[in-house]
Amino acid sequence: MRNNQFAIQPTTPAERQAELKALRLLPDDWQALTPKALLKHFLVTSHPAAKTAASANQWLNGLAATKDQSVMAWLTSDDPLTTPIFDLIALQLLHFIPEVDYQVTAPVAAVEKIRLPLLNPTSWNVATVTDAFYQLLISRNNNGYRYLDQLVADGALAWTYQLPAAEKPLIFNGQPIACFDPATFIREVVYVETDLDTDFDGQADLVKAEIIRPVESNHGLKVPAVFTASPYNQGTNDAWGEKVTHQVNHPLTHKLTSDQAPAELPFPQPQTYQTITGEASQATETFSETPSYTLNNYLAARGYAIVYAAGIGTKDSDGLQTCGSPEQTASMQAVVEWLHGDRQAFTDRTSGQLIKAAWCNGHVGMTGRSYLGTLSTAVATTGVAGLSAIVSEAAISSWYDYYRENGLVMAPGGFQGEDADVLAAETFSRTKNLADYLKIKPTNDHYLHQMARAQDRKTGNYNAFWAARNYRPQIKNIQCPVMMVHGLNDDNVKPNQVKALYDGLKANGIPAKIILHQGKHIYINSFQSLDYSEMINLWFAKHLWRFDNQADEVLPAVLVQDNYTPQTWRTVNDWDGVKTTHFNWGTGCLTPKAVEATTQFFTDGHPAEQYQAWCHHPNQWQQALLADNGSFSAHFRTANISQEITYRGTPHVHARVKVNADHGLLSAFLVDRGLAKRLTVSPVTINPRSLRAGFHFGSDDLREFKLASQVSPAKVISFGHINLQNRHSASQVDDLQPNQFVDVDFPLQPIFHRLPANYQLELIIFATDYQMTLRGNEPLTYTLDLANCWLEVPRD
Amino acid sequence: MRNNQFAIQPTTPAERQAELKALRLLPDDWQALTPKALLKHFLVTSHPAAKTAASANQWLNGLAATKDQSVMAWLTSDDPLTTPIFDLIALQLLHFIPEVDYQVTAPVAAVEKIRLPLLNPTSWNVATVTDAFYQLLISRNNNGYRYLDQLVADGALAWTYQLPAAEKPLIFNGQPIACFDPATFIREVVYVETDLDTDFDGQADLVKAEIIRPVESNHGLKVPAVFTASPYNQGTNDAWGEKVTHQVNHPLTHKLTSDQAPAELPFPQPQTYQTITGEASQATETFSETPSYTLNNYLAARGYAIVYAAGIGTKDSDGLQTCGSPEQTASMQAVVEWLHGDRQAFTDRTSGQLIKAAWCNGHVGMTGRSYLGTLSTAVATTGVAGLSAIVSEAAISSWYDYYRENGLVMAPGGFQGEDADVLAAETFSRTKNLADYLKIKPTNDHYLHQMARAQDRKTGNYNAFWAARNYRPQIKNIQCPVMMVHGLNDDNVKPNQVKALYDGLKANGIPAKIILHQGKHIYINSFQSLDYSEMINLWFAKHLWRFDNQADEVLPAVLVQDNYTPQTWRTVNDWDGVKTTHFNWGTGCLTPKAVEATTQFFTDGHPAEQYQAWCHHPNQWQQALLADNGSFSAHFRTANISQEITYRGTPHVHARVKVNADHGLLSAFLVDRGLAKRLTVSPVTINPRSLRAGFHFGSDDLREFKLASQVSPAKVISFGHINLQNRHSASQVDDLQPNQFVDVDFPLQPIFHRLPANYQLELIIFATDYQMTLRGNEPLTYTLDLANCWLEVPRD
Repeated sequence: MRNNQFAIQPTTPAERQAELKALRLLPDDWQALTPKALLKHFLVTSHPAAKTAASANQWLNGLAATKDQSVMAWLTSDDPLTTPIFDLIALQLLHFIPEVDYQVTAPVAAVEKIRLPLLNPTSWNVATVTDAFYQLLISRNNNGYRYLDQLVADGALAWTYQLPAAEKPLIFNGQPIACFDPATFIREVVYVETDLDTDFDGQADLVKAEIIRPVESNHGLKVPAVFTASPYNQGTNDAWGEKVTHQVNHPLTHKLTSDQAPAELPFPQPQTYQTITGEASQATETFSETPSYTLNNYLAARGYAIVYAAGIGTKDSDGLQTCGSPEQTASMQAVVEWLHGDRQAFTDRTSGQLIKAAWCNGHVGMTGRSYLGTLSTAVATTGVAGLSAIVSEAAISSWYDYYRENGLVMAPGGFQGEDADVLAAETFSRTKNLADYLKIKPTNDHYLHQMARAQDRKTGNYNAFWAARNYRPQIKNIQCPVMMVHGLNDDNVKPNQVKALYDGLKANGIPAKIILHQGKHIYINSFQSLDYSEMINLWFAKHLWRFDNQADEVLPAVLVQDNYTPQTWRTVNDWDGVKTTHFNWGTGCLTPKAVEATTQFFTDGHPAEQYQAWCHHPNQWQQALLADNGSFSAHFRTANISQEITYRGTPHVHARVKVNADHGLLSAFLVDRGLAKRLTVSPVTINPRSLRAGFHFGSDDLREFKLASQVSPAKVISFGHINLQNRHSASQVDDLQPNQFVDVDFPLQPIFHRLPANYQLELIIFATDYQMTLRGNEPLTYTLDLANCWLEVPRD
Repeated sequence: MRNNQFAIQPTTPAERQAELKALRLLPDDWQALTPKALLKHFLVTSHPAAKTAASANQWLNGLAATKDQSVMAWLTSDDPLTTPIFDLIALQLLHFIPEVDYQVTAPVAAVEKIRLPLLNPTSWNVATVTDAFYQLLISRNNNGYRYLDQLVADGALAWTYQLPAAEKPLIFNGQPIACFDPATFIREVVYVETDLDTDFDGQADLVKAEIIRPVESNHGLKVPAVFTASPYNQGTNDAWGEKVTHQVNHPLTHKLTSDQAPAELPFPQPQTYQTITGEASQATETFSETPSYTLNNYLAARGYAIVYAAGIGTKDSDGLQTCGSPEQTASMQAVVEWLHGDRQAFTDRTSGQLIKAAWCNGHVGMTGRSYLGTLSTAVATTGVAGLSAIVSEAAISSWYDYYRENGLVMAPGGFQGEDADVLAAETFSRTKNLADYLKIKPTNDHYLHQMARAQDRKTGNYNAFWAARNYRPQIKNIQCPVMMVHGLNDDNVKPNQVKALYDGLKANGIPAKIILHQGKHIYINSFQSLDYSEMINLWFAKHLWRFDNQADEVLPAVLVQDNYTPQTWRTVNDWDGVKTTHFNWGTGCLTPKAVEATTQFFTDGHPAEQYQAWCHHPNQWQQALLADNGSFSAHFRTANISQEITYRGTPHVHARVKVNADHGLLSAFLVDRGLAKRLTVSPVTINPRSLRAGFHFGSDDLREFKLASQVSPAKVISFGHINLQNRHSASQVDDLQPNQFVDVDFPLQPIFHRLPANYQLELIIFATDYQMTLRGNEPLTYTLDLANCWLEVPRD
């Protein structure tokens, strides 16, 4: 394991001593003890399994101080405390494995290699023992959490559950610790009233919210709320989604400038609101379990209230599923407003009994990945009061870029044929209340039908439907700091989604952090080598609990996982590189130098059997494309690079191209060429359910990206597509004649990629992308005028 | 979903009413109510989320009674209760999906198709409503558990936690319900003293046991203990196991009758025992989490004490890892003896304070799969008092058949090069206490070294080492009923392991049940379509709680999953078929008819590149073997069978063969030939963590075997191997001369396989099995004398 730990608050000795006292680990007479006696006290006090001295000593008998001596034997010897002894004990307590993670005779070297934040003091006295034990508590173990949190999971801090509300939360190193008893959590349901009527019934839509909060929040402790807005939360209609998935195995067609999709159905203003009959002091509906994000469980044990809402068009709420519309955003904004005291909610759907979030300190954070992160971003762009921080994970910032690209219908990776209406059908969980569903079904069917037309799969153009689902123009309205997390290999929500948000926040001077990992569309809160949960806790402690913990200074602005070396992260100040390389396209080559003017062609379309096979297994198509020698693609490759280069930012392709038809598309892959074992893009489970959120409270699989067991010759690192009839913009149709040379300029997905020395960068130009575009299988011939083609890639 | 539910106790109306009253679901005045009012009472009482009438009515508003009416509207109407209305409500409560699992207008047909045990009374009155709701409570939902357990998971029965110990456990339909609060479980550690000294230190080995039990067991409730004996439980040494894994890419050699491996190192009798200083009233060591079997969690919530021990040679225990030896069995037997009051245990390793299992009712069950199930079987063969039932899942009954076969070194599927010494090294978790390990290391290294010789990879013969690890001769000593569970596709612990146990129990008249599923080496307690957990609960309720619940009569003797149709199980009285088909081998054909006398040869050994590829990817070898046209194998196939046949029992191969060397082996595959979508042998996760063991207490992934998405032409259904020098027995070496025809007779793995009409049965004879045998890659030619070869397969 190679530890990458960022959430460490700098502290003074006095602060460390005070915190250890608050945790009842540092005894009052600590300065009167010998260093060894103090260390024994720390060890025994933090080992709750032993209830007697005999049991504790038995445990110390099993711990080694040196290769020849147990800790028990060493404690009763005259041998002094040394750094090797402390480190060997620490490595055992942190569950590192002898002969694998460390050599028993060389613990200090292992501590350094693993990068644990332990001390190596010049002398060992009670002050340095205290500091060293403090550092041990914040050191991360072989299971991906800190020794402090290991003590929590072992029950060593369960006594903190009994502390009065006024003394909570206990803080250690700038973060609240897990001092809230999950067995006593309050679970309650409220119905937030919106100013929407998205099911055309005249009544203001109610939106259900589920809340999990510590019992102390009923006894005077005001806690922040972490809100996850998830349309999936109340269930999904998987079989129905499959049924309405669109056919993609048909050709592009010629577009006319007059092609115009019908506008969306507008929603009315509500005619009536709930009649208020009084105010309840407590909720009247509860729940047992709700689909949860394990990061939220981690935070719940640390005193944050956790709130889930699925928004309009879901089980127990009103309205329809609009897939990214302003109304969906407003329905989630309403929950934040209620938490902040600016909107009313009821205990149920009919009685008119108001209920307030009196337990909330008014600071709301938002979390969640994908659609959930998208809604965090969307709500933030409303500038709603009370929203104090959001974590935007693998989030969409414009739905056009999710289902379309430059005038083309485009699939999220792995979901060919999905579109806004499909996702709406899948997440319309009012189906789960059958009587409610049977009533609303005609309205919903009609709505989905018009949505299917408004989204316009015919032209693939940007229109009013998509403009309503583009949050980027409102980035300037964001009032709270934003933490972005995205996979550089995410082909579902693609990296340009987060890049646009990142750039917009930067342009508007809004405080932001970004973490770019080497995964696809995944959560990263259970990685062995990165302290992501602690980073979020530290950052939320600052922005939601409002503790002065230096989180903004301590956490890196831009954190990027290396694409070749496992468990390695780089901190930089900006995503984009400062230089740009301009590559010309010669026959087979990509070079900054001048090249001879020539043309090159390739032909799309394949024999029926090949076509069918690739439709069923698009991965095989990609392998064939990488190996193609110019029959259905054009390849341009650099020479072996002489020294490693990190390409970072958004590459651009400019091409002059003609096609023997009145319609066509151009696709581009940017490829890292070189025989290597590459990181797998899906993390591997190291230890199932070993990552524990608290004491008998939830667990997660410990995971990590590993190197593939086999070498691979190439990896696609970026891609882009454009309709030849959208040369000026996604919303403007240009005419196209057969064999008319036209110029297109389009961005590829943004990258942050280290290309090692002796590797090559390759650009592949082709038409049909079996994984993402329509698959027409027309035998069209595309010709490139290479003298008018170039590629620009920003770099270190 | 197609429900397969067996654990249903027949009850009388009076019993049903009494049980519903005990659950506080049937009101005192039930006979004075209308049928509809009673049903409303049942519904509302079992919906704990709603704390007010308004909330409850809101929920009833969302439930449909018919396609046009909510339950709320129907309740206030004059429309009577009908079976379609009851069934539609039931389907919703059980989370089946409209338009997927059922049609709203045809609920009764769906109930029948899903096979829910609901009623269809001729008239609906309060008596039939009561019966119908009782049946609903025991009906299994779409998430793989009963509605009763769904209520538990929703908290509807959390009030039962407060009942006094004397009123527990609450029983419903013959099984204890989850009326024990997991948040108050006692977790404690004791050290059981054995009569062993397996680490040669003169002292009686102590074995650590971890206990989880309900707090009520401290207040007068005597509970049964479910004990899982798992050498893995305290951690494993994966990296070390890999390091000592044996090389298998070398040839067989000629064996001499004089070849004799050295005997095992005998263990001394202990010289000293703990000095007793007194008796403690409670344990002095606790623990937080222990690796648990989710079935045990399910049972824990239902009042069973759960006990884990890892035995000798594991963390916090004494002794060495002996891999299946009588000493290992004795160390686990000691735990049962302590639970039954026949052996002493201490609170820790040094203080001499005795501790008793005063909370135990003296009835111990054992659970667990693979090595765990093996030790259940092994302990049962000691006939130890107190052991009242064991579930033997995927268990070894003779270690020789795990690591050897008929004089050959043989790998468990997927674990080439593993052997007893490797498994011992992997599970020797005294490594986890570093100081303890550093002390015992020389002793352990020496022990493993002698074990490697005693297990004798050189000859592969059965010897004293393996005889000590063969539990079959002691099956006659088993005193308790046995439930066996095994995968018909388990190539790790192979089906002959359970068949030998099954046959032995039958021969000795010991009560037994067996479940044969279509999986590999897996647990089956989280399947959507089978009520396995309930079967175990019912069976343990009978044998451990000693309730008179007709479990033995209700549960099938032999339950077999169908190999072609998903979610389909067959109950029979015996594994073996009553007939046997005798097949002769003609050129290319397998036939009951007479065939012409001829010979057929094939040649083992392949070009180096091919050989290396197959060593790395043995699956590819198997594909090649299935497609081979006689170059390195001989194939004999029946004609298309005219009607389906179920082959059941142990097939036998007799062959007359010669090889042009003084050593050789014969391998056989029995193959189901026919283009079909077959069940996957690994279950698919339907819904992660949706199977809940209790209220806020653990969850499991809901799983099921699915049909593969692609058709396959063939499936290996049985196999066997023999060393040509072990023609008489595994322990006796026969001479072999090059080109000497010899007769071998060997069993294949037992089967229970339905071969559909128009399919073919095929026998493939070959030599090297890349997945399991040594891989010598010698170009040996084997010649079969077909007139003296036959295959016998028992059948329906």
